[in-house]
Amino acid sequence: MKVLLVGASGTIGKAIIQEFAPRHEIIEAGKNHGQHQVDITNIDSVRALFSKVGKVDAIIAAAGNVHWGSFNEMTADEFRVGLNEKLMGQVNLTLVGQDFLNDGGSITLTSGSLSHDPYVGGAAFTTVNSAVDGFIRGVAVELSRDCRINSVSPNVLEESWAIYGGGVPGTTPVPAAKVALAYRKSVEGRQSGETYRVW
Amino acid sequence: MKVLLVGASGTIGKAIIQEFAPRHEIIEAGKNHGQHQVDITNIDSVRALFSKVGKVDAIIAAAGNVHWGSFNEMTADEFRVGLNEKLMGQVNLTLVGQDFLNDGGSITLTSGSLSHDPYVGGAAFTTVNSAVDGFIRGVAVELSRDCRINSVSPNVLEESWAIYGGGVPGTTPVPAAKVALAYRKSVEGRQSGETYRVW
Ligand SMILES: NC(=O)c1ccc[n+]([C@@H]2O[C@H](COP(=O)([O-])OP(=O)(O)OC[C@H]3O[C@@H](n4cnc5c(N)ncnc54)[C@H](OP(=O)(O)O)[C@@H]3O)[C@@H](O)[C@H]2O)c1
Ligand SMILES: NC(=O)c1ccc[n+]([C@@H]2O[C@H](COP(=O)([O-])OP(=O)(O)OC[C@H]3O[C@@H](n4cnc5c(N)ncnc54)[C@H](OP(=O)(O)O)[C@@H]3O)[C@@H](O)[C@H]2O)c1
Repeated sequence: MKVLLVGASGTIGKAIIQEFAPRHEIIEAGKNHGQHQVDITNIDSVRALFSKVGKVDAIIAAAGNVHWGSFNEMTADEFRVGLNEKLMGQVNLTLVGQDFLNDGGSITLTSGSLSHDPYVGGAAFTTVNSAVDGFIRGVAVELSRDCRINSVSPNVLEESWAIYGGGVPGTTPVPAAKVALAYRKSVEGRQSGETYRVW
Repeated sequence: MKVLLVGASGTIGKAIIQEFAPRHEIIEAGKNHGQHQVDITNIDSVRALFSKVGKVDAIIAAAGNVHWGSFNEMTADEFRVGLNEKLMGQVNLTLVGQDFLNDGGSITLTSGSLSHDPYVGGAAFTTVNSAVDGFIRGVAVELSRDCRINSVSPNVLEESWAIYGGGVPGTTPVPAAKVALAYRKSVEGRQSGETYRVW
């Protein structure tokens, strides 16, 4: 299959490439790295990406920042970062990408376990991850031509533990290779509207 | 208790007043109606509201628009309406309101059953309602002084069936008086981080 991967240079993106490369043609995209540059927070940039890439069999997004910090000290603008980047970035990719999927194609987005496993500092993550999982449930009933949409909800990765581990005491990090398998299940399977939890 | 109700003039708001009036002092707020005018999409307006109202025992929000329409034809701006109004409106109210709660006080927000019961046209609702339910899970672990936060997730109301019923065939609408009881459970109970489903 022809697979467009946004966030290809990231920790999760690199693991997806390892898992997918033996069987699929991967088009690597990112804000600064990869074959194609795109800013998913800007819908015109997403349109420009698809006008270059054309039709694909699968779209995967593993990209988008969210603000981490005490809710008592958070500003509305800090809270909005995750809505603009991780949520609207993936929404923009889906709004434009739905018309660039071949019949039977799929979209796979990324949320995260903080949706149901809240920690102090993570209120914006819990909100955005829940929103992404809701979004794929909502869009799944609207896609046509046998197209599908799912999300992958990883716990903190072992590979990212040094960055995020301090904020999530008591959780068991997951290997990136296991997270990548959930994207494989979404792309090569036939389910839609599912959140694949890797917790 | 002293209860600030945003959306007091609405279909749900009026039912909350009926349920709460015998036992509580209600401060009615809304964009155009009620004792106090506030635009919850504007955090400065929310700050101005609390500087007039002062400390309260409970904050309830039953307000905020979302765009209904085919996902294939939806623009990013249409999708953003619900994020700006129903989601960020309630987030703004919580960001400011947390410091105006008396010890043991509560915040109760409104989501909706489309979070888990998607219909064609409702992708933005499914997203926003999921986000609100995530938001209260995230914030519940951050509040101090025994303060609490929950959401009420109503199905379509019998009283709103003429407006929304056409889009949600096969569902069983719920009476506003039953929805109001869920807000009572949140305000007069002791749970936090809960979504009370009225489906
Ligand atoms: N890592 C974890 O432990 C973990 C756990 C659960 C969920 N997640 C979620 O998974 C996603 C990816 O995480 P990660 O750790 O793999 O990220 P990462 O290592 O920081 O990499 C981020 C990737 O996203 C791309 N990107 C960032 N902003 C972009 C934009 N506006 N437009 C297009 N591409 C953009 C970057 O591209 P360039 O390099 O080209 O700039 C990079 O490829 C995030 O949403 C994160 O919340 C991560
Ligand atoms: N009705 C249903 O069947 C149903 C089912 C599930 C969920 N819900 C959710 O419940 C909430 C309330 O629904 P409803 O049907 O009761 O609404 P409604 O009858 O349309 O009333 C809306 C209320 O919200 C206030 N409001 C609107 N925008 C505001 C803003 N920016 N700032 C402050 N106040 C604002 C209005 O104030 P003014 O009148 O003063 O302008 C009014 O009191 C909505 O979020 C809706 O999605 C409704």
